[in-house]
Amino acid sequence: MAADVRGYFINWWKNICSMVQNVVPVILSGGSGSRLWPVSRKSYPKQFWPLLSDKTLIQETALRGRAAGFADPVVICNSEHRFIVAEQLRDAGIHKAKIVLEPVGRNSAPAIAAAAFMVAEQDPDAILWIMAADAAITDETALQHSLKDALKAAEAGRIVTFGMKPTRPETGYGYIEAGAELAGVQGVYEVSRFIEKPQAAKAEELFQSEKCLWNSGMFFAKAGVFLKETEQFEPRIYETVGQSVRNRHTDMDFERLEEESFSAAPDISVDYAIAERTKLAAVVPGNFGWSDIGSWDALWDLTPKDAEGNATFGDVFLDDARNCYVRSDGIIATVAGVDDLIVVVTPDAVMVSHRDRAQDVKHMVNRLAQAGRKEAVAHNRCYRPWGFYESLIQADRFQVKRIVVEPGAKLSLQKHFHRAEHWVVVGGTAMVTRDEDLVMVRENESIYLPLGCVHRLENPGKIPLTLIEVQSGPYLGEDDIVRIEDVYARS
Amino acid sequence: MAADVRGYFINWWKNICSMVQNVVPVILSGGSGSRLWPVSRKSYPKQFWPLLSDKTLIQETALRGRAAGFADPVVICNSEHRFIVAEQLRDAGIHKAKIVLEPVGRNSAPAIAAAAFMVAEQDPDAILWIMAADAAITDETALQHSLKDALKAAEAGRIVTFGMKPTRPETGYGYIEAGAELAGVQGVYEVSRFIEKPQAAKAEELFQSEKCLWNSGMFFAKAGVFLKETEQFEPRIYETVGQSVRNRHTDMDFERLEEESFSAAPDISVDYAIAERTKLAAVVPGNFGWSDIGSWDALWDLTPKDAEGNATFGDVFLDDARNCYVRSDGIIATVAGVDDLIVVVTPDAVMVSHRDRAQDVKHMVNRLAQAGRKEAVAHNRCYRPWGFYESLIQADRFQVKRIVVEPGAKLSLQKHFHRAEHWVVVGGTAMVTRDEDLVMVRENESIYLPLGCVHRLENPGKIPLTLIEVQSGPYLGEDDIVRIEDVYARS
Repeated sequence: MAADVRGYFINWWKNICSMVQNVVPVILSGGSGSRLWPVSRKSYPKQFWPLLSDKTLIQETALRGRAAGFADPVVICNSEHRFIVAEQLRDAGIHKAKIVLEPVGRNSAPAIAAAAFMVAEQDPDAILWIMAADAAITDETALQHSLKDALKAAEAGRIVTFGMKPTRPETGYGYIEAGAELAGVQGVYEVSRFIEKPQAAKAEELFQSEKCLWNSGMFFAKAGVFLKETEQFEPRIYETVGQSVRNRHTDMDFERLEEESFSAAPDISVDYAIAERTKLAAVVPGNFGWSDIGSWDALWDLTPKDAEGNATFGDVFLDDARNCYVRSDGIIATVAGVDDLIVVVTPDAVMVSHRDRAQDVKHMVNRLAQAGRKEAVAHNRCYRPWGFYESLIQADRFQVKRIVVEPGAKLSLQKHFHRAEHWVVVGGTAMVTRDEDLVMVRENESIYLPLGCVHRLENPGKIPLTLIEVQSGPYLGEDDIVRIEDVYARS
Repeated sequence: MAADVRGYFINWWKNICSMVQNVVPVILSGGSGSRLWPVSRKSYPKQFWPLLSDKTLIQETALRGRAAGFADPVVICNSEHRFIVAEQLRDAGIHKAKIVLEPVGRNSAPAIAAAAFMVAEQDPDAILWIMAADAAITDETALQHSLKDALKAAEAGRIVTFGMKPTRPETGYGYIEAGAELAGVQGVYEVSRFIEKPQAAKAEELFQSEKCLWNSGMFFAKAGVFLKETEQFEPRIYETVGQSVRNRHTDMDFERLEEESFSAAPDISVDYAIAERTKLAAVVPGNFGWSDIGSWDALWDLTPKDAEGNATFGDVFLDDARNCYVRSDGIIATVAGVDDLIVVVTPDAVMVSHRDRAQDVKHMVNRLAQAGRKEAVAHNRCYRPWGFYESLIQADRFQVKRIVVEPGAKLSLQKHFHRAEHWVVVGGTAMVTRDEDLVMVRENESIYLPLGCVHRLENPGKIPLTLIEVQSGPYLGEDDIVRIEDVYARS
């Protein structure tokens, strides 16, 4: 950080230090991100991948709030992703996040209302900084400017949006037309109107206008103000979500919203439900390099490139390529004699597309899903509360898996009706329950689990346990499992 | 086969049946085929892959000789490929091929001379049909026509080449200019001259000419005639190769040429050594769809295509693609919104190239080789005389392999200094030597081989033995092996 920037930051910090204790980042982790397939999939969507740095998008998002000195975040996510969220936040050094589980997906208005209810229980005047888990911001200094402006307006009871000065006639974003500057709040403007994602001609017109800004979908508003507007414009959301919050229960480190009432909430975005209706809307024009990373092309745009305009990641060799995005999270990828191409390789899929057609990746994902292909939604590596497993080879009568168990974690007590298992420990130490016995299995030792035996795998040690599992039997589906006991409360 | 074609074939068969007993196909299996990387590699080049049908190219080549009623072939190959050649011919039902091993590669003239010497030992008047193992011929009926014409000229003592009517101004082939028709041999012409691979302008000129034909590199000539011309034009080849054939020794099913004398032979092609010098050259113009499959683009050209001009193979999904060749021998490949692209996926590499740049694949292979990447020359699956193995995962202190042993085969008696091995049998039955013991290991049983123990794996059964090997230790290189005894005479 340059000295003048650091000096600026310290001043800014002093200015707002008294105010920031009651700003709570609300991180919405709801998207399934099929537009960045095959990296991003329903089972492990794009917010959980390191796409722009060595941190994942949700980590970058959460750390942005910490850098501003705000409170620990509230993260609202799909129940299926809870262990991923918890581990990624822990990895980023964020230990006191509140992780709220949606029993079903109901779009952004109910999710935000749930966060607002929970924050308001402590302090209705606390300010929510609402944002998606999977967006990029490239200019943190500019962001700090905008946050400072937004804070004043939110303190004054406004629902503040952040509008980005357009750099191209983008058809993939909604727009905000700014009106007059707020009286007494420099840098913040009235909202004249919200404009939905435009067609190309309209986008060009908006791009030319001085007043029209991209709608970043971020909000700054007091929890109480947000709830009041929700009550006025969407009383059904106010009622159902309020009830699901009051009836929530705590499941380990997670806050689980009550399913019955939350399911009854209307499925509606915060833009339609509140932003476009409220008279309290305001907008802070900003230039902090926000992007929703809505396609591989957008990611290419955000990534540093070589002299020929190529952005690469992983085990990639290029020859006479220009303006390409080439990424491998698996085997070597070589690309030669092409322009404007996207090539993405994961351990189980290859995707090649013209950059101009990057938006259409989701159509391909739909086709794969219709064809019943698991690659459409799930990765080969499956994350579990205790670690992960991945299939190394699957054949008619055998399967080999790598299983990694985190220190202190244990799998469920289980049995199988159609397969025997050979476990070879290749790293760490395993404690294995096998029927009546408890056996310690060390590195370079193995144990045999005959068909039907009741068994459990546990890592009693201080380093990850890695084992190779060789399954043998006529049926090897994941559903051949009877869970007799599970510390993670899975059925 | 249509009835008229069948009728024609039967007549043709009757016509030449008396002559064909002494035609011996000579199949040159010398190329390393880097232009079809990543499928074709030095360790397993393109002649061993099924690229145009469910048969491999060398199988198609060998079966073409059988379809014409010729003798069993002589195959000249790299010693490293001997077990692949033997198994692929066996698979194709060709059990009496003579497989001749070159101790070193010395280009086509010495290889052909070796075949000629060996055939001439039995019958100097036998006719050699000399051809590469890795070319395509799409019109077998037209080929039969041309062979019939060539046979007459070869019987008359000529060295007959096969010239293809050009379909484009190809710069990748040499050309033959045909002269006057041979007296008394209809359909066969004198050779005016051989023309080397031309530049583009020259190629256009040759393409326009009525007399210029692509040089297919196939020959038809009596063994004795071929040797006489070799003796006259390349006495050093005649002398050295003659000696290496006389001093050859038989190694299992293989004829191994003597290394010292063969190594002394000049490295020179049959075109330079004989064809362009002899006064006996003749040419049969043919249109039987010959191609040397010199690039992925050429393979695209030879492969049936969909309405949009796409040729696909394996687990491939296309969306709005045109004139592409997309092949996967591994994970799913999706290609969208592109034209004229080649996408090839193997279990360990992805290659994307513009079709117009398909010839440049070899540059990429050179770069990978310079970077020390094993993918440049070897596949993940390694074929051995006893079967094959492939690495499923390799980490710092462990590796997992799948090992398949053919019925009756056995690995060497060996030991390792840096790794222990766990073997889990998942198919078939293993007989395992472990120090003093001989242990039978059945499906769903395992055995442990501690570091330093002397061991051997054998398949005593009637079906392939499949086992999963888990290696554990600080060094897992293939070179940590001491072979104490080996039925395949490997050091």
